[in-house]
Amino acid sequence: MNLDQLVARGVWRIRLGEPEQFTPVGMREIPPDLTGLENLPAVAARFAPGDLRFKTTARGCVVEIPMVDGEQIYGFGLQLKSLNQTAKKRTIRVNSDPLADTGDSHAPVPFYVSTAGYGILIDTLRYAMVNTGSHVKVGQGTPASGGSAPSGNVNELYKARELQGRYCVVDVPVAKGVDIYVFGGPDLRTAVQRYNLFSGGGCLPPLWGLGVWYRGSTHHNADGIMGLAKQLRDDRMPCDVFGLEPGWQSQAYSCSYRWSSERFPQPDEFLKNLQSLGYRPNLWEHVFVHPTAEIYEALKPVSGDYEVWGGLIPDLSLPKAREIFAGFHDREFVAKGISGFKLDECDNSDITPWFWSFPEAAEFPSGLDGEQMHSALGPLYQRTLLAPYRQRNQRTFCQVRANHALAAPYPFALYSDLYDHRDFVRGVTTAGFSGLLWSPEVREGASVEDLLRRIQAVALSPHALINAWYIKNPPWKQFATGQNNADEFLPEADAVTDAVRKVFEVRMQLLPYLYTAFARYRFEGLPVCRALVMDYPDDVNTHKRDDEWLLGDRLLVAPLFAGQTEREVYLPAGDWYCWWTKQKYPGGQVHKVAAEVDTIPLFVKTGTILPVAAPVQFVAPGTVFDITAQVWGTPSEPARLFEDDFETFDFERGAFNWVELTTDRRVIRQGGFAGERYRIVKWETMFG
Amino acid sequence: MNLDQLVARGVWRIRLGEPEQFTPVGMREIPPDLTGLENLPAVAARFAPGDLRFKTTARGCVVEIPMVDGEQIYGFGLQLKSLNQTAKKRTIRVNSDPLADTGDSHAPVPFYVSTAGYGILIDTLRYAMVNTGSHVKVGQGTPASGGSAPSGNVNELYKARELQGRYCVVDVPVAKGVDIYVFGGPDLRTAVQRYNLFSGGGCLPPLWGLGVWYRGSTHHNADGIMGLAKQLRDDRMPCDVFGLEPGWQSQAYSCSYRWSSERFPQPDEFLKNLQSLGYRPNLWEHVFVHPTAEIYEALKPVSGDYEVWGGLIPDLSLPKAREIFAGFHDREFVAKGISGFKLDECDNSDITPWFWSFPEAAEFPSGLDGEQMHSALGPLYQRTLLAPYRQRNQRTFCQVRANHALAAPYPFALYSDLYDHRDFVRGVTTAGFSGLLWSPEVREGASVEDLLRRIQAVALSPHALINAWYIKNPPWKQFATGQNNADEFLPEADAVTDAVRKVFEVRMQLLPYLYTAFARYRFEGLPVCRALVMDYPDDVNTHKRDDEWLLGDRLLVAPLFAGQTEREVYLPAGDWYCWWTKQKYPGGQVHKVAAEVDTIPLFVKTGTILPVAAPVQFVAPGTVFDITAQVWGTPSEPARLFEDDFETFDFERGAFNWVELTTDRRVIRQGGFAGERYRIVKWETMFG
Repeated sequence: MNLDQLVARGVWRIRLGEPEQFTPVGMREIPPDLTGLENLPAVAARFAPGDLRFKTTARGCVVEIPMVDGEQIYGFGLQLKSLNQTAKKRTIRVNSDPLADTGDSHAPVPFYVSTAGYGILIDTLRYAMVNTGSHVKVGQGTPASGGSAPSGNVNELYKARELQGRYCVVDVPVAKGVDIYVFGGPDLRTAVQRYNLFSGGGCLPPLWGLGVWYRGSTHHNADGIMGLAKQLRDDRMPCDVFGLEPGWQSQAYSCSYRWSSERFPQPDEFLKNLQSLGYRPNLWEHVFVHPTAEIYEALKPVSGDYEVWGGLIPDLSLPKAREIFAGFHDREFVAKGISGFKLDECDNSDITPWFWSFPEAAEFPSGLDGEQMHSALGPLYQRTLLAPYRQRNQRTFCQVRANHALAAPYPFALYSDLYDHRDFVRGVTTAGFSGLLWSPEVREGASVEDLLRRIQAVALSPHALINAWYIKNPPWKQFATGQNNADEFLPEADAVTDAVRKVFEVRMQLLPYLYTAFARYRFEGLPVCRALVMDYPDDVNTHKRDDEWLLGDRLLVAPLFAGQTEREVYLPAGDWYCWWTKQKYPGGQVHKVAAEVDTIPLFVKTGTILPVAAPVQFVAPGTVFDITAQVWGTPSEPARLFEDDFETFDFERGAFNWVELTTDRRVIRQGGFAGERYRIVKWETMFG
Repeated sequence: MNLDQLVARGVWRIRLGEPEQFTPVGMREIPPDLTGLENLPAVAARFAPGDLRFKTTARGCVVEIPMVDGEQIYGFGLQLKSLNQTAKKRTIRVNSDPLADTGDSHAPVPFYVSTAGYGILIDTLRYAMVNTGSHVKVGQGTPASGGSAPSGNVNELYKARELQGRYCVVDVPVAKGVDIYVFGGPDLRTAVQRYNLFSGGGCLPPLWGLGVWYRGSTHHNADGIMGLAKQLRDDRMPCDVFGLEPGWQSQAYSCSYRWSSERFPQPDEFLKNLQSLGYRPNLWEHVFVHPTAEIYEALKPVSGDYEVWGGLIPDLSLPKAREIFAGFHDREFVAKGISGFKLDECDNSDITPWFWSFPEAAEFPSGLDGEQMHSALGPLYQRTLLAPYRQRNQRTFCQVRANHALAAPYPFALYSDLYDHRDFVRGVTTAGFSGLLWSPEVREGASVEDLLRRIQAVALSPHALINAWYIKNPPWKQFATGQNNADEFLPEADAVTDAVRKVFEVRMQLLPYLYTAFARYRFEGLPVCRALVMDYPDDVNTHKRDDEWLLGDRLLVAPLFAGQTEREVYLPAGDWYCWWTKQKYPGGQVHKVAAEVDTIPLFVKTGTILPVAAPVQFVAPGTVFDITAQVWGTPSEPARLFEDDFETFDFERGAFNWVELTTDRRVIRQGGFAGERYRIVKWETMFG
């Protein structure tokens, strides 16, 4: 056991046994952001030599990490079924259809953080299992519980006991050793920052990526898509990215990566038309290569031994496979103005009747096996398609349906085919613990109310996506799939359209604020959307709060769900103001908050200088924002805005400014970017 | 690869690589029934050397077994979510709460059978995964499907393709080798028989075990139980076994195995009272040993390293642990008239919020790890508690909540806390492929109709169990839990009681027929309840028929579900008669069959001589059955009845008779049992 190897400020590697050849850290492309890590405070090592227990077994290896009483665990990637991960068994296994609170997820990450102020990364691609203090060993825990009265229901019989003397037990199959990375705090939030910076820092999307996205029906041809695109502009609906679904391809399961000559006979012209309306085109695809694809034969020697939907599985851990795949995409799509991709189906699904993807027993030419590749595929696929954009000095923002460790630098938002609204909202609160971005995407609705509640939540999430892939018209014309596809519109379609525009315009007003939050994610590793417990780990009222989140440092979002006219909102310490009514709410308590169907509860922390832009419909190459500096209460600190060209990597070489709005209402612009993209046009006192 | 080692007639072992130390066959107690196997016809080897592919990997080992086009797969133990296991991924993992059709089950078995006429046992305790022809390798399967039209829903996108060039891919973790046992046909049913005989032959319960079981509320004290027991007799409700739930113990989670001094202050007297009414007492328990148990200290050195509910996990693979556990049970319970046990909680649950049992990383003194022990625990626990009965030359019939390979000889019926009625009925059709008995137990109901439909199904299943563990009064007095516990009875309670008695009396009429079916299970390995496909594998109409079953060789049961007044029943080739109306139904087609709420569709195959007993309320030591020989249509073969003392192992030494009812209406009794337990009192022509 090689304890206590400091690999960067506040980050320790503990090598146990002999780790496997293929691991997330071992395969990483992007190095740790050492500068970012140096900017965080020094911290003492969390664990002393001998604190961890380790053994190898026939099954692999086991690491036991001690816990303290009352410690609460979060993380493990995108978890739709629960926020708090304490006293559970988590299986870190990529799956698109997690059926219960098991750890399985589109984007499970072998990383967790604790309210005791540290984080743990288990550097493995294996389907590790982690018991987070759910069990104790004989003679090492609390005495057996008393209570001899018989119980008449299973909930009571089986309810979890609060145990003492607990360990987090990490069970790694196959591997005869594993590197454990320990991230210091002193608090949970700083541990998350260190993890993200160790991953390379958070991603900084181009500004247009933070606007509204719309994906049109897979059945539309070029005319159908252009009709939709024009309609959005006519309706003054904010929209930056227009996405095409499988129907753009001649073969989609598996993928030909060729335009359908039937639906898109003149793709170049179609793309120009779309771009002329200010849209950034985005293409759906997956990684399984159809025999009619141009790259099929070239990829065959660098692909796995199994087929998926009759297509190849390119081994994207091999540079050659990445080159073939990326080179083709660069030439055929990126060069022609495709702003990004939606990388579908890279997650696996083997617990549903529609079982697809490859078995764990699959073999790949690199030596990766199917189990490892299921964990690695999402990150490898992202890395492959980022390369052409990086070469062109052009940032992108994309979608992906699978992720894993060290993902923070990848500008990809997660999504899923699942659709429970509470689960989707919970995902916003859980993704941020592990360097992930999650979109609670909106497709159709069960009612006008359900549709609006969903759109309100997605509008204030990391990725504002309308995914109308199986409905012909925008969902605000008709929430029900059948009627929508039959062009039967709601009588109140105009009012619903107004309500949708209203919340999307809030997003567009907050665009510079959001962009700046992403810049902090990039440089400081601080997630943009955060569960309350990340900022208030010592407040036990936050420990299970899974339906509200912090947006940047100064806003709190508490969406309603269909059927609610009001909800309970817990506001942490400090006063808060309602964005809409300006009403003041004292923090540290639960409030009943009502909201009309066209309004989402949104709170501003007291002392905030909030930069609010005049909303644009989309971000054009030359867009300059007119900004009102809203002063909520007595300003406690200056606001800062991150300013650059909004779309290249020049900021990495210093071409950016920090624009400070000071407490005494001055504007100080400092940095190496020559342009001015923010114009402070007004100071406004919102209260007091 | 050591192909083609004939281990018994029609059974081949194929040793691949180096198998693990602990496997079901390696740990078996009961030897194969070589006599039974010799009585089956000879059959050629299914696979030639080289047909199977094998490799070891870092993850374990992989076996690929070729399939033929159109081949249908069944088995893998108790499967509640599906009957037909073709083109799926099955994970052979013991779990009490399977959430979807994944293979997980209370009683998964690494054994499957095929309509192509063979069976495969994978001799492992590992959580093996089997892809039953769901995938093909590059260049080895059918060409990629055509169809370039985009699809607008996920069901269509993901629907399974019928593939050719398929293999069953068996992925065994950890192990660097495995023994595959191939069971010859020539048909599916004979392959099942060979597997059961290889397991040691089916179990033969004592006749009382095939009567009706009632488990009373866990909250009852001795007086409460005696009140219930008397009430059943007063109501003339058939009942042989009375079971006590956790409340009989002073501590139940974990178990003290001590009578509660509060609820059962005089256990010996209580047991005598219960027996005096003709009941066989049965005790609930589980295997996790509370510190107050008498055997706690003795078991400590032979237990696993983890606690479950504060109790020890005895390592029952060790003779010493079995001796301590069994010796105590013999002295304290078996000697005092306890007829059997209900072995709860031995299955594991780690995919629910109420996560319990031990982790896979647990260690046991024998060298078994937690993963292996989860597979082995059910069989080991059964074996442990059978020993005292065997020593006393006393047969038992018990319950258990987990099972695995080679279980046919164990006289234990499975049950579960789940309760979907269609799943429960499906379990009757799936359990029989792998040497298991399953009870679709009845607790409460959603309505009178739901309750009656459930009771009708359980009455004609392997184990007729009312498990009223959380309701005070019999469910036929009140189906709803809350009202039942408040003594608020149904206005129509008498009519419901009559309807329940009616179907339980059918079971008691069929008791000799059922007992004989179990004797065939014992000697020929033929399951008592069988999915239609087991007897008619070439009839494609049976391939997915999961809601009706064959009961013995001459009866077919087709239960209704709440909400139905009629249902579709598929009757295989040959004519069938309705048990109730005597109406004749031609086979080979689907019929719409209606049934009043007090009636379950039950069909008799034409040509049957059916021995029907005058129903007794319970089986007493001296019970003799008055039997009517019902002749349905023109009898095609004689009926046979198995006759012995109904309760000891003397039959193994020849003390049994076959009583033949011939087509010309004679009774021929042959064998070494001196008594006469069946009295043929009448011949009755039922039709024609």
